[in-house]
Amino acid sequence: MNTSQDVVDFVRNGHLHYLPHLSIDCVIFGYHANQLKTLLLRYHGHEQWSLPGGFVRRHEPLSEAAHRILATQTQIADLFLQQFHTFGDGSTRLNRIETQQIHNRIFAKAGVAIAEDHWLSERTLSVGYYALVDYLSVTITPDFLVEEYAWCDVDAIPSLLFDHQEIIEKALLTLRDQLYQQPIGARLLPAKFTLPEIHALYETILGKPFDRRNFRKKLLALGLVRQLPEQRRIGAHRSPYLYEFDPENYHRALEEGSVLAG
Amino acid sequence: MNTSQDVVDFVRNGHLHYLPHLSIDCVIFGYHANQLKTLLLRYHGHEQWSLPGGFVRRHEPLSEAAHRILATQTQIADLFLQQFHTFGDGSTRLNRIETQQIHNRIFAKAGVAIAEDHWLSERTLSVGYYALVDYLSVTITPDFLVEEYAWCDVDAIPSLLFDHQEIIEKALLTLRDQLYQQPIGARLLPAKFTLPEIHALYETILGKPFDRRNFRKKLLALGLVRQLPEQRRIGAHRSPYLYEFDPENYHRALEEGSVLAG
Repeated sequence: MNTSQDVVDFVRNGHLHYLPHLSIDCVIFGYHANQLKTLLLRYHGHEQWSLPGGFVRRHEPLSEAAHRILATQTQIADLFLQQFHTFGDGSTRLNRIETQQIHNRIFAKAGVAIAEDHWLSERTLSVGYYALVDYLSVTITPDFLVEEYAWCDVDAIPSLLFDHQEIIEKALLTLRDQLYQQPIGARLLPAKFTLPEIHALYETILGKPFDRRNFRKKLLALGLVRQLPEQRRIGAHRSPYLYEFDPENYHRALEEGSVLAG
Repeated sequence: MNTSQDVVDFVRNGHLHYLPHLSIDCVIFGYHANQLKTLLLRYHGHEQWSLPGGFVRRHEPLSEAAHRILATQTQIADLFLQQFHTFGDGSTRLNRIETQQIHNRIFAKAGVAIAEDHWLSERTLSVGYYALVDYLSVTITPDFLVEEYAWCDVDAIPSLLFDHQEIIEKALLTLRDQLYQQPIGARLLPAKFTLPEIHALYETILGKPFDRRNFRKKLLALGLVRQLPEQRRIGAHRSPYLYEFDPENYHRALEEGSVLAG
């Protein structure tokens, strides 16, 4: 929403255009130079932070809604957004009045208030999507209701609104779990990379150091990357082999039932 | 729903008790003696089949709703139901009148009809849950609106209502994908099993034969099962080693970030 009038229109007529009881929240992980962060935003009127998120239009496919919401609120487009979980347990913790109060503090900037029986005051379940980007490549354009955006270290997430803490934790578990199933790092590394480069990426995402030789063995056994005959010349005594992702091999194995049973 | 009156109450007052626009659908995979099936049901008035499913109560945690719905419609309780995906793309394909007609054919048995502006005629997204059971151990008690239940071979799924075909396909992909990440077979095999037994289970679920020696090597490398010092005496020349699942090892690896990076 770009103006005060957008917010007023949303509060007055949103029920005609959006599905009630269901939102989308996006966990955007940002990686750069051995650091893993998450994109958070802080609405005007709140000290607590939130995930980027919004509502699904009445006739809009869910996956399109996720992309539209992220692009509208942050101007980030063309991400590989992956749905990972729908959250409907924590949403029973807030009652109608608490939910109303949170929204009214957000909307105060536009001088509009919602009532206790407004659809936004009701219980809302959330479909979680995540993505992984190089955070230096991302430019964010502020939304009217947002006071600030920040890339927060995943180890130091501040206090969050709603059940967003739980959503980030589950997203991080999913990211880590899928690291060996999908070429998740493919957009964060150069097309041809060295073993130390992918090792550093995996250590950062998994949040712990691990043995490089064992890592290489397992990565190659899975067929997710392949060693190239080329080497990179770093110095007289340092010319590590280059590797590349093998998404075709991965997708074939997945279609056949397992990355491991081939 | 057990009686005609239950259906009439649901149609008249359901909007007071249930969230609109969101249902739960359950894909119950049944395995026995090298056969993999899915539990389907056929409502009165329909030739097409459906998944067991229902709606979430207004203040009910989502995960509790999934168990309640399955127990209510089939009497199957205490399953390890796993949420796997929320479906919100296919639901844009049916319009309001088509949705109304499907429900009216189901409800005709109770002599009640819904209008075009009834909440059940509106677009409904679906949260998918799956489970894997030994289908011989399951007893199903028919719901008032259901004409018949069947365990259908996953390779021969009949024509289905709504987007249930898509839901089953995604559930099967997820089951296959998680076969090496979770001790999925633990409830389907005896506590101590032979390699041919777990090999047959995995071949059936993955829907294809694969090399037994390679399978054993990968399964042990993942730490999902461990070989026991005991052997089973089958005959003079046949005493295969016994294996058991090692869920503790799996869960520790998962918490540390990956089953493979340990």
